[in-house]
Amino acid sequence: MVVGSLSMSTDNLDIPDLNEIKEAHARIKPFIHKTPVITNASINTRAGASLFFKCENFQRVGAFKMRGAANAILQLSQGQLASGVVTHSSGNHAQAVAQAAKKAGAKAYIVMPKTAPKVKVNAVKDYGAEITFCEPSLEARESEANRIIDKKRATFIHPFDNKEVIAGQATVSLELLQQVSEIDYILAPVGGGGLLSGTALTCSYMAPKVKVIAGEPIGADDAFRSLESGHLIPSINPKTIADGLLTSLSPRTFAVIKKHVTEVITVGDQEILEAMFLIMERAKLVIEPSAAVPLAAVLRKPELFSNKKIGIIVSGGNIDLSSLEFTIS
Amino acid sequence: MVVGSLSMSTDNLDIPDLNEIKEAHARIKPFIHKTPVITNASINTRAGASLFFKCENFQRVGAFKMRGAANAILQLSQGQLASGVVTHSSGNHAQAVAQAAKKAGAKAYIVMPKTAPKVKVNAVKDYGAEITFCEPSLEARESEANRIIDKKRATFIHPFDNKEVIAGQATVSLELLQQVSEIDYILAPVGGGGLLSGTALTCSYMAPKVKVIAGEPIGADDAFRSLESGHLIPSINPKTIADGLLTSLSPRTFAVIKKHVTEVITVGDQEILEAMFLIMERAKLVIEPSAAVPLAAVLRKPELFSNKKIGIIVSGGNIDLSSLEFTIS
Repeated sequence: MVVGSLSMSTDNLDIPDLNEIKEAHARIKPFIHKTPVITNASINTRAGASLFFKCENFQRVGAFKMRGAANAILQLSQGQLASGVVTHSSGNHAQAVAQAAKKAGAKAYIVMPKTAPKVKVNAVKDYGAEITFCEPSLEARESEANRIIDKKRATFIHPFDNKEVIAGQATVSLELLQQVSEIDYILAPVGGGGLLSGTALTCSYMAPKVKVIAGEPIGADDAFRSLESGHLIPSINPKTIADGLLTSLSPRTFAVIKKHVTEVITVGDQEILEAMFLIMERAKLVIEPSAAVPLAAVLRKPELFSNKKIGIIVSGGNIDLSSLEFTIS
Repeated sequence: MVVGSLSMSTDNLDIPDLNEIKEAHARIKPFIHKTPVITNASINTRAGASLFFKCENFQRVGAFKMRGAANAILQLSQGQLASGVVTHSSGNHAQAVAQAAKKAGAKAYIVMPKTAPKVKVNAVKDYGAEITFCEPSLEARESEANRIIDKKRATFIHPFDNKEVIAGQATVSLELLQQVSEIDYILAPVGGGGLLSGTALTCSYMAPKVKVIAGEPIGADDAFRSLESGHLIPSINPKTIADGLLTSLSPRTFAVIKKHVTEVITVGDQEILEAMFLIMERAKLVIEPSAAVPLAAVLRKPELFSNKKIGIIVSGGNIDLSSLEFTIS
């Protein structure tokens, strides 16, 4: 850090250090899968680079979110566990909190918009969580969550603006760096920035030569615009097929990203869909649109990545297959 | 063997021994992936058993067929390689022969029915093979292949009735037995019986306590009826969504299966589709219908498999994704 710099500092924000990331990995190990890394010759040919897909779609609950939720919940006291945990989410974080709470023997209260897809509601229910429905707005979700916090004395588990959650997400690249040597780049998608900031921290501590780059949907490009302008610019009315990436950065994740992320590459929904089908058709992985954003970013800038060794974090695989129609011929 | 038994013997048929299977594995190693084994808690709950999915959908060309084709082609003499190889297939074996021939520096002649899907034709073309189109009948395919054999002196690589091909397919379970200990059952799909007989041989040599069971589509149930009756009954006009399993057993594969396979479980197309979606939705694997048949068989007989440790050979992932329609909401 340059003393007196006008740029935002991470010094006064609580972010995990290397030891806390390693401790997180040891803590959550019994509750997560060490996910495999897959390579695919034809995608490599298409990209003109060597890609290593870190398959968090195979993670418990089908997404990396299990890591952060488990790390946060496993550090709660017995008293806190007895009062339960709460979060608001219609996506993978809801399932992760519900599942991690179940493993830790704590009650989970999940606030979901009443418009949430039935398949996701059922998944959260299957983990034994108590669901409260609310209007589909951030205000309604926060107010309902606050009501539960007050009433039950439950602990709020933020999806990304939480030191323990970031440390948990940072374990994805901790494993990836062990599984693949001499990586040039790691690409992660960015929504709220929990995975991206965790990835950037791990690399800055353990492999500072590895450049961390984000893929972001054009329709929710707050990270791109924030990094360009140097200050946090939240997305207003974001719209993208990558439904896991609608959230905006927090000051904490932005500070880490600003310091340690090389570049944010934005891609359109059509590019995201094409990358998703490429991964499904060639690499045989079922992934959700958000997880295809890093590959779309690589394909957007072939000259940058030419002949490089690139880790791609495949963030999750929770796609609603009822939107895919299979016809018996 | 009981001397004088009326049952068909494998003694006078050329089948690989343990050493030939191990040699096959060493030979093809540089040309194949050691595919991972995936587990999934929610499918285990559904099945009431511990399932270990051996992911040959991640194999080169997207199917186990690469193993057999590579093992056969890598044993050809320089003279044979110079004259090229030939096969007739519209499916995974065509791609495997084309790819293995390319790796070995041999020309591949592939006879395909003129009705073959363009995506499969293009895949074979991409590997540099020479395609000859013919009428969509077995007679036309065989006669065209014979014409090429005569004209080019090319070596025919049968998709399953070939000792080296069977030895190659046998390496799937060789790896699986190394990757997972104390398996009770291994389930494989059965079409022509190359994978199933290879699996049965490996287990009979290396893990005789492991019971090998086949899953077979009701619409192409020649293995079931052959095993029931004790003699080979080919399918006539087979019809199933599992397009990789339309072929009937050969005397060679039937002899091995009769001796070493415990049971053939038949399943309908609806069961196959449901198992395919279960694997895609929960295990996040893109698989083809044929590869879902073993899971469908487990779900058909829950009492048989209750609390057992079961290896499931996920034979391939070459499904035409253009038949899946994804809608941007």
